[in-house]
Amino acid sequence: MATASYAERVGAVRGRPRDASRDEALRQAALEVMAEVGYRALTMDAVAAKARAGKATIYRRWESKLDLVIDTVNQLVHQNIPESDTGSLHGDLREFLSSFAAFLSGPSGKAAQALVGELPHEPELAAAFRETFLVAQRDVLRGILDRGTARGEVRLDAPRGMVVELAGAALTYRLMLTGDPLDMTFVDRLLDTVLLPLLRPEAE
Amino acid sequence: MATASYAERVGAVRGRPRDASRDEALRQAALEVMAEVGYRALTMDAVAAKARAGKATIYRRWESKLDLVIDTVNQLVHQNIPESDTGSLHGDLREFLSSFAAFLSGPSGKAAQALVGELPHEPELAAAFRETFLVAQRDVLRGILDRGTARGEVRLDAPRGMVVELAGAALTYRLMLTGDPLDMTFVDRLLDTVLLPLLRPEAE
Repeated sequence: MATASYAERVGAVRGRPRDASRDEALRQAALEVMAEVGYRALTMDAVAAKARAGKATIYRRWESKLDLVIDTVNQLVHQNIPESDTGSLHGDLREFLSSFAAFLSGPSGKAAQALVGELPHEPELAAAFRETFLVAQRDVLRGILDRGTARGEVRLDAPRGMVVELAGAALTYRLMLTGDPLDMTFVDRLLDTVLLPLLRPEAE
Repeated sequence: MATASYAERVGAVRGRPRDASRDEALRQAALEVMAEVGYRALTMDAVAAKARAGKATIYRRWESKLDLVIDTVNQLVHQNIPESDTGSLHGDLREFLSSFAAFLSGPSGKAAQALVGELPHEPELAAAFRETFLVAQRDVLRGILDRGTARGEVRLDAPRGMVVELAGAALTYRLMLTGDPLDMTFVDRLLDTVLLPLLRPEAE
């Protein structure tokens, strides 16, 4: 990580968007295979078979299964966790949390869970996962808190770093450990009883 | 789950404590095998080999690998997450969080992580894990909040359920996703900037 970041290296290797819908179908196939068998057991052959494509087609786009999986996760995050800018801290956080909860409740959640279980044995995957998935999600949340701060909706000594960490933690914990629903009731409870009280100015 | 709980059923099957140190060695072997290969790939043979025991010795104590694994997790939780009663909310929560963080940072953390990654594909394991590990951890925390409430250290409208959930979520997220340290700096930050402010009476 001293030189180019993982995302930069991958960008340098690929970067020829020839048929976006084909790439999309291949990523979708990778996601499904990952949800079924996990990262370690995923093979380019299985992804090719699921997408009814040749293995060479996949290797022209991604140089390894690590590249394919991380690019898939990355694209999914960008598609499913939009940069919300509703004009209020409450609105932005609610949009972020509900998009993220819906994302994790779907097939991506199963794939994410399989991936996370393998991180301890796959240091390269772990580093790439943190550098893409976690950083992307944190950056969106930090942007929301920055705009809220500029509007005076966040007090200056608020535990911003902890709030960012806990938003991800709360959703992931339900997905991976308790299995309790990731619905709007939970999102609103998390927002109204925990995140907003930790952020808002005392006077309010 | 309509009839006897998992813990009750296991208790009914076993319940002959003949050689506690032998049981302990077998559980330790199960933990190590799980940290190495995960739950699905764990076999009674591998546990027997690691503990230098006969397979029959294991089957006399646990009727299946699910029983062995859940009993192992259960014992570990009871040994490592003590019922703290220091006389103050701050003291009790700090003791709980630091014990739990140390527990997750050690070899048990690796085993727990392997286990969690397999929950989506192992519904029986998932149910047993939730009924033992998660419930035990929640009950200790609820006891702490009850005593704090009785002493007037918890305000009546505090989001108790969310605090219990977030304490587990915050530690698990670091262990399984970010890989950031589970040290006392983190425990104190979680406690002082999030959990206590959410619980304490406004006037304080």
